[in-house]
Parts: sequence; structure tokens; C-alpha cells
Amino acid sequence: MEMKMDKAALEAFLVRDFPQAAGDYKFVEVAPPYVTMALIASDRHLRPGGTVSGPTMFGLADVCAYFCILATIGPVGLAVTTNCSIDFMRKPAPGRLVCRMELLKLGRMLAVCEGRIFSENAPDMPVARASLTYSIPPAP
Amino acid sequence: MEMKMDKAALEAFLVRDFPQAAGDYKFVEVAPPYVTMALIASDRHLRPGGTVSGPTMFGLADVCAYFCILATIGPVGLAVTTNCSIDFMRKPAPGRLVCRMELLKLGRMLAVCEGRIFSENAPDMPVARASLTYSIPPAP
Amino acid sequence: MEMKMDKAALEAFLVRDFPQAAGDYKFVEVAPPYVTMALIASDRHLRPGGTVSGPTMFGLADVCAYFCILATIGPVGLAVTTNCSIDFMRKPAPGRLVCRMELLKLGRMLAVCEGRIFSENAPDMPVARASLTYSIPPAP
Amino acid sequence: MEMKMDKAALEAFLVRDFPQAAGDYKFVEVAPPYVTMALIASDRHLRPGGTVSGPTMFGLADVCAYFCILATIGPVGLAVTTNCSIDFMRKPAPGRLVCRMELLKLGRMLAVCEGRIFSENAPDMPVARASLTYSIPPAP
Repeated sequence: MEMKMDKAALEAFLVRDFPQAAGDYKFVEVAPPYVTMALIASDRHLRPGGTVSGPTMFGLADVCAYFCILATIGPVGLAVTTNCSIDFMRKPAPGRLVCRMELLKLGRMLAVCEGRIFSENAPDMPVARASLTYSIPPAP
Repeated sequence: MEMKMDKAALEAFLVRDFPQAAGDYKFVEVAPPYVTMALIASDRHLRPGGTVSGPTMFGLADVCAYFCILATIGPVGLAVTTNCSIDFMRKPAPGRLVCRMELLKLGRMLAVCEGRIFSENAPDMPVARASLTYSIPPAP
Repeated sequence: MEMKMDKAALEAFLVRDFPQAAGDYKFVEVAPPYVTMALIASDRHLRPGGTVSGPTMFGLADVCAYFCILATIGPVGLAVTTNCSIDFMRKPAPGRLVCRMELLKLGRMLAVCEGRIFSENAPDMPVARASLTYSIPPAP
Repeated sequence: MEMKMDKAALEAFLVRDFPQAAGDYKFVEVAPPYVTMALIASDRHLRPGGTVSGPTMFGLADVCAYFCILATIGPVGLAVTTNCSIDFMRKPAPGRLVCRMELLKLGRMLAVCEGRIFSENAPDMPVARASLTYSIPPAP
């Protein structure tokens, strides 16, 4: 797929449009239809015991899918999540959590992404999988 | 369904086991198989424009399902979310967000909950719906 | 919600547009936003042991959601399922399977339904729950 | 992952335990954690216009996930589907439909599979994606 925003463009968009979340995420790779992001976990992302919480993993998958779409269609600010199905499969190991998301379908109205979350050192043992649908605003 | 923990018992459990999240949620009603909770939204739950974020709604559904199970089986600390499917349907109106969750199935190993999130003043226009599966630890 | 097609209109639509499936389903009640349909199970719907198969239950939920939408928007032939999340919770008891579906959201482009499948005699012990999204063709 | 049943063993199991469905499916490749199966579509799988129906695609994903698990754990007859999330993304092109399923997690009680359905000649344009959870009976 064509790339309309590269890593630097997505980083600038994240900082400008989501200033309160920008410190939580780091782009690892932008290569449409794939985007890979890492979570910079802080205390408020953790459950007792030091495990990353479910809502934090949901948020990582959600933001990664969003930028997966933007990398391909450009800086459209109004795409919204309409559906997510997520399976939590293993406890995260210590270390950074990474999400690798793939844009599976880009239609006129809907985009579908699918990806996995894993501990940086264990890509073959995914912690979670998620599929998400975004509604895309009609071109003006 | 039988009630093993009432509202006061669930509140005490929330404060003791999830001290960092206890200020975010308020029990509205505990009436198995239903539990209703409200979100006490603060700045970190909001997107630009004042809308409650997707991960925050996911978190509300998740915690409400958890306490829906605990109300029926008692203070078992090890139930974990294995799956969630969530649909975001409308933008939240101003006002408190409420989640009403129902325990649909309580098996030996799995519990399934289903519920809706709505703005306190508009229960007929749900903002989101969610279904969640929890894995329940075997009785000791 | 307004009703654009009543039970007789939906029955006629089913027979005309889905002749090969019309014998499998029966409308029980049409009362938007709810539509209730029963499965007329035959041998090809059953698994060994006489249990209704998963794909048959999926099909029942899917067709019931479709007619739930049509009851409200009228005879639009081009709505298509884009997503379904289904939980199988119990083995069906002997007797007819019934699906009661609710139209939760009807937008310009997307409709979301949620419902339950149960044995006719045991509505409180649902066999399955399902949520479905349909994409609706733009008005001409 | 270890292979407990190869292609010939799975084919024999399919014919013996699901005689009424055996003619609908063909194993393409058995290579744990992946199993690939093709649908032998007949009239009853088709919608008007010759498109494979949603329930038929659901059934293909379901059976492929089942054999994905059996290839790894051996001939256990009692695994049951507890959840499926499926996205329908494109109309199938003419030609055989193929499902490639991956076993993502094999726990003591639950197995999670994820896969895609595509037209044989267009693996890069998936028609559907699905994730499924199976409940596995405890070892005797």
C-alpha cells in the first residue's frame, strides 16, 4: 500500500493532536499496511503485580490501528473506532509491550485492522490479539 | 441469582484491591445478575473535546463485568478477562457515563457478561455495548 | 421506532428474496426495535447427538438481525453483515430455537443489533448471544 | 508446535465424525500451528448471485479452527466453540474459498485461533477474518 504519512509525520501528528497521550507511545516501524508501536508503560498502566492492565492494552491496539489507517490515508482526524474484539491470551512478560497492526481492508466507509500485542522479547507468544473497525468520514 | 457480595462488600473490595482505580468508579446498583456502575470521569479519561475515550469505556465495561461476577461467586481475586467485544455506537452526551452489566452465564471455568454503557440521562440511546468472557480459577 | 415492514411484509420478502432459506425460519414477533424468529431445524442443521450446529445458530442470528433492520428501514436489499461477535454459552435443550434481536443503533451507514438465542421453553438460559454490524447502502 | 495428527489422520477423523460435512471441506495443508482448508461449495452454500453465504464462511472458519487444535492436541472429540468474532470485508471472487487458521494459544482450558478466508487466487485480499475460542475438556 501507498504510504501517505511516514514515521516522522505520524509522530508529529501524535504530539500535536494527542498531547496527553504522546508520552505513552513510541513508533517502532511504519511500513503500510503494517504499523508497529511500543507502549511506554508508567505506573497508571499497571495492575497490582506490575502487569499491564487490559484497558491499557486495548488503548495500545486502538491507537496503533488508528495510525495504521492514517499512514495509508493521510492526516484525517475524524476516523472513529466502531468495533473492537480483543482476546487476552497470556500474562505479559517483563519488558516493553509492542503492538504490530495490519490494515486488512480500506473501504470507502470502513477500515478493518488486525494485530497482536507481545512482549518485546517474545514475539511468538502473543499476549493479546485484536481486530478493530474504524468508520472513515466521507471525503469532503 | 444468589448474591454473595452486596454493594458495601463490593465497594470495600474495590478500595482494598484496586486502590488506584477506586476513585474512578461508583456502584449504582448491585442486583445479581445485574451490576450497574458509574464512571467518575476526570481529565485523563477524556479525549480532546471532552468525550470519554474508548479505553476508558472499555475499562468501565471490564470492571463492571468483573464485579458482576464477584457479586455472584464471592471475593475470588483471580478471574481474568479472556475476551471482549465492544461496539462504540454514539458519542456520549454530557453527564455521567453508566454501565449496566448482566451475568449471562456462570460456568465452572468461564463466565460471560453482556452490558451497555449510556449517558445517565439517556438510557435508551446506548453509547456502547460490550460482551466479555472471564476465566474463573478452579475452586481450591 | 417506526415500523416500515410488518410481519406479513417481512414474510413475503423472505419468501421472495431467500426462497432456499424461507422454510428454515418463522417470524414469531415483529415489534421494532425487536424482531423474534424461530428456527425450523431439519437434519442438515444438526450435529451428531441432535444439537443445533454453530453455523446454524450464526445463520439464525444473522437473518434475524437483517430483518430487524428491514422492519425499521423498509425493503432495502443491499444491507450486508460486516461484523459478528457470537458467544456459545450452553447446549440447546430439545425444542425450537428462538432468536430475539434488538436494533441498538441505526446510523446513516451502519446498523448495530444485539440479541440472544434460547430454547423456546427456557428464555432465561440463553444458548448464545450475538452482536452484529450491518453496512447500509447509501440512499439513492 | 508438535503435530499429533497429520493430514491423513485429520481427513479420517473428519470422514468418521462428521460424515454429513466431510464432502464440504478439503484439507490443503496441515503444518501446526497452521491448518489450511478449502470449501467445496455447493448450491446450499450460496446466496443469490453465487456468493458464498456468511454462515458458510463462519462454518469454514469454525471447522478449520477445530482441526487446527486437533492437529496439535490429538483426536479429542469434545472441544467446543465458545466465542467467534468474524469480519466480512469483501465479496468473494469466483473460485474456491480457502481458510488459513493459526493456533495462537493452547492453554489447559482454552485455545485461541485466528485466521483469514480468501479466494484461492487472491490471498492478499482476504474476504473475511475470524478469531475463535474453543473450550478444551480437561484431560481424563
